[in-house]
Amino acid sequence: MWGTFFGVGVGPGDPELITVKAQRILKWAPVICLPKSREDAGSYVRGIISHLIDPARQEVMELVFPMTKDRAQLEEHWAAATGKVVAKLRSGQDVAFVTEGDPFVYSTFMHLYAEVRDRYPNVTVEVVPGVSSITSAAAVAGLPLVDGAERLAVLPATYEGEQLTQVLRDFDTVVLLKVNRVFDRVLETLEKLGLADRAVFVSRCGSPQQRIVRDVRKLRGEELDYLSLMIVKK
Amino acid sequence: MWGTFFGVGVGPGDPELITVKAQRILKWAPVICLPKSREDAGSYVRGIISHLIDPARQEVMELVFPMTKDRAQLEEHWAAATGKVVAKLRSGQDVAFVTEGDPFVYSTFMHLYAEVRDRYPNVTVEVVPGVSSITSAAAVAGLPLVDGAERLAVLPATYEGEQLTQVLRDFDTVVLLKVNRVFDRVLETLEKLGLADRAVFVSRCGSPQQRIVRDVRKLRGEELDYLSLMIVKK
Repeated sequence: MWGTFFGVGVGPGDPELITVKAQRILKWAPVICLPKSREDAGSYVRGIISHLIDPARQEVMELVFPMTKDRAQLEEHWAAATGKVVAKLRSGQDVAFVTEGDPFVYSTFMHLYAEVRDRYPNVTVEVVPGVSSITSAAAVAGLPLVDGAERLAVLPATYEGEQLTQVLRDFDTVVLLKVNRVFDRVLETLEKLGLADRAVFVSRCGSPQQRIVRDVRKLRGEELDYLSLMIVKK
Repeated sequence: MWGTFFGVGVGPGDPELITVKAQRILKWAPVICLPKSREDAGSYVRGIISHLIDPARQEVMELVFPMTKDRAQLEEHWAAATGKVVAKLRSGQDVAFVTEGDPFVYSTFMHLYAEVRDRYPNVTVEVVPGVSSITSAAAVAGLPLVDGAERLAVLPATYEGEQLTQVLRDFDTVVLLKVNRVFDRVLETLEKLGLADRAVFVSRCGSPQQRIVRDVRKLRGEELDYLSLMIVKK
């Protein structure tokens, strides 16, 4: 009998924003997987869930997923991680893979999910949704996202100026994720559209390092945190 | 001293998808507000949180927000509800207003939030984000929403065919909320774009009445549940 593979969203950073279901699964799953970006780095999600884990009963596997656009390197790491997870599942152990926010919104889990579903169709996979950084950033910023007939767009930080302009024109609310990489260019577009005053920057939402900046012009030229987003509400 | 006004997201319907924070607040808040659509109807959220409430210690106020597009009627109900909430806050009691999903994504709470912020700036308001029906529907349908450079659009069911066509062309994943009202027209647009096979319908996500339909053509002409959405993933 194979174990069950759980993808567990644990919310954006505040340990209280985990769901009761995620908490239950993380307290009993024999194997807990935590993603991290470098071999010598800590895992961001460890700080959210470490109080739930009992190292005497549970095995914690840290899996490295480097922040790179090199597709071959990424696939190598996804394959290695899948191999480790599958070995545990095959031995009958349930495995809980922890993701910041929600497992189906720009997460590393999605790659392991696809591999396991495609190559091991007999494995039961359960996805536990979590509070995403999008709605929790809106909550801490006091910025209602969408109401009534309003429309919401969510974009990662990989877009051209013209595309971004179009989306900002068409949608009532636009959330730009991982905005750190392209901040100055985005600010330029916002200025052109007269929207710089309608933007709020949030990074490390819900964690002790949380930062909320309402005058986003102040951030020009700054090196920004990776876990950052901007909400533009017209 | 005024009480604190909490907007508490309790997730989409599964009582286990509530956060630890929402649970803590709902267990102690002296006044709990539950929205419902008709005087003689039950409140959908009551089923999610009733096990947390102690009627001996806590007052439960049901507030009616009718499902209508009549703006004057809506404003009358928002004002009446705000009046009831403010009376409790003024007497020093903390009030927790419960919302299905997340408080800042198409919720009734947003109107009370705006009124209280504008007219009673001395009141402390805290918004507790919740798991939205968008990511939880994706989880139960086994449909990863967005990854890498992909873009997500979320629309309520108030759009014209041409606008919808444009969004379906431009975005990788489109979530159509309250799709029950316009289902047949949406299906027509999906058929024209060759996307009917890429759509999944989910209603009452996470509740005992949850329904997942992968062949959405079967739903043509059917009277559909109000708490319904469709995910279109190209």
